[in-house]
Amino acid sequence: MNSVNKLVLLGTGLIGGSFALALKRAGRVGKVVGVGRNPDNLQRALQLRVIDEASSDAAAAVQGADLVLLATPVGQMGRLMTQIAPHLPTGCIVTDGGSTKQDVAALFRAHLPQHLLYCVPGHPIAGSELSGAAAAQYGLYEGRRVVLTPLAESNPGAVATVRALWEACGANVYEMDAAEHDGIFAAVSHVPHLLAFSYMNAVLDRRNAAACLDFAASGFRDFTRIAGSHPDMWRDIALANRDAILADLKANAAQLQHVIELVEGGDSNGLTSYIERASAARSSWGRG
Amino acid sequence: MNSVNKLVLLGTGLIGGSFALALKRAGRVGKVVGVGRNPDNLQRALQLRVIDEASSDAAAAVQGADLVLLATPVGQMGRLMTQIAPHLPTGCIVTDGGSTKQDVAALFRAHLPQHLLYCVPGHPIAGSELSGAAAAQYGLYEGRRVVLTPLAESNPGAVATVRALWEACGANVYEMDAAEHDGIFAAVSHVPHLLAFSYMNAVLDRRNAAACLDFAASGFRDFTRIAGSHPDMWRDIALANRDAILADLKANAAQLQHVIELVEGGDSNGLTSYIERASAARSSWGRG
Repeated sequence: MNSVNKLVLLGTGLIGGSFALALKRAGRVGKVVGVGRNPDNLQRALQLRVIDEASSDAAAAVQGADLVLLATPVGQMGRLMTQIAPHLPTGCIVTDGGSTKQDVAALFRAHLPQHLLYCVPGHPIAGSELSGAAAAQYGLYEGRRVVLTPLAESNPGAVATVRALWEACGANVYEMDAAEHDGIFAAVSHVPHLLAFSYMNAVLDRRNAAACLDFAASGFRDFTRIAGSHPDMWRDIALANRDAILADLKANAAQLQHVIELVEGGDSNGLTSYIERASAARSSWGRG
Repeated sequence: MNSVNKLVLLGTGLIGGSFALALKRAGRVGKVVGVGRNPDNLQRALQLRVIDEASSDAAAAVQGADLVLLATPVGQMGRLMTQIAPHLPTGCIVTDGGSTKQDVAALFRAHLPQHLLYCVPGHPIAGSELSGAAAAQYGLYEGRRVVLTPLAESNPGAVATVRALWEACGANVYEMDAAEHDGIFAAVSHVPHLLAFSYMNAVLDRRNAAACLDFAASGFRDFTRIAGSHPDMWRDIALANRDAILADLKANAAQLQHVIELVEGGDSNGLTSYIERASAARSSWGRG
């Protein structure tokens, strides 16, 4: 399957809407049905031609579909899978855009056990401060990465189709194990967010918090940018990727303890080599 | 004193050079003598008219001076104070540009005990990735903040002079206690740097560090920007502001432990309110 006759978006926001727009531009999709709970958002998606039909009924929408993209927060995916399970056409591929993958794999197993051959978990690495169908854009996935974490059961043909469609959106597609995925994104995304929240709360707990915020400058601005992220989304991620995040938070707590010992001991050489290692790696990453 | 007849820069780089240029533009300085250890840098400062005379001899340079700015790393200031002590004219004001203030106050007391009336510690909040006399610029202090932390002994007239000169550079001048200063900058600058170094080292210690760095994206980029900072400078700051930094690092370690408990316990409501507090404060700061 190199193109899709009927694509159903379960969740019609930035991620799903941009997938639909890119496939339309690439001539890879016939009809796009957008499902969502917010009528205004669906109306906007219709006006902007992100979708061709709107629906609030996931079960009805998936009839006749050959591709379903779950593009809601992960917390809503289980309920949607339950709704569509009795109505999914045989062979209809189901994929998702969730940013954690072991939990989505578990949801597929729990709610679509008869359909695992056609379930292909995925994670497009393309966020934005914006959300909703109005934020959808043709080029969102251009040059971005998409990670697929196929189930042991996933049909290689279904995986190849999902890969080809993301590539048609301009993305570079990687495949890896779900646990490997979750460990990597815990380390480079989830844990930095939690560290930034933690640091902000430490500042707020100071008796002179207002003066601190008043004198905070550009280093603070960049270090804390991600602390302004959406609470519900990051609570869900913290809960969904709990084990990988916990292991990494504890590794960070141990590092911090080591820094405390270096400073407490006035260990000049130890501090120099500790900072040099971090600084060299960050500078080299910045050039990469 | 509203203008300076002879200004001596002990350290002729970005901070001192930009101070000299701004005072020249404002017509507030007669002659500027630049002292430094790097002949090429001094030659460049002469060519660019940042300074009018170059010297490698601090003791000789301060003769006839009415203002001395210590604009080297704090680690070099004690030695320079010792050199100039026997040669400082009575009434010559000595100020500095160091980013920690309790330790500079201690250096003044140790090395210039006869001269404390004219010692006015200061901290211009204006950094740059660039350094050296060639990086000096007229407008560096325009609209930036300068914090003065006068000693109990500092003559109010000397403080007023230093304030007026920084204001002539376009800066907004604040006065506070040295301990208050060091606590604020530990919280909003020094500790974020150490947390960023610590986080980078935690990533580097992972068995899949290369894959992590490969998938790191914009959140990682901003969160770790300050981890690329200069090792020697930040080792010196960590040692110079040890007590304030230690107290704040320990507060951060306690916050991190709390986050670990929230995640470990799957405390959805607790995580939500914890993240909401940080996110609301950061968003409000960003609009401020």
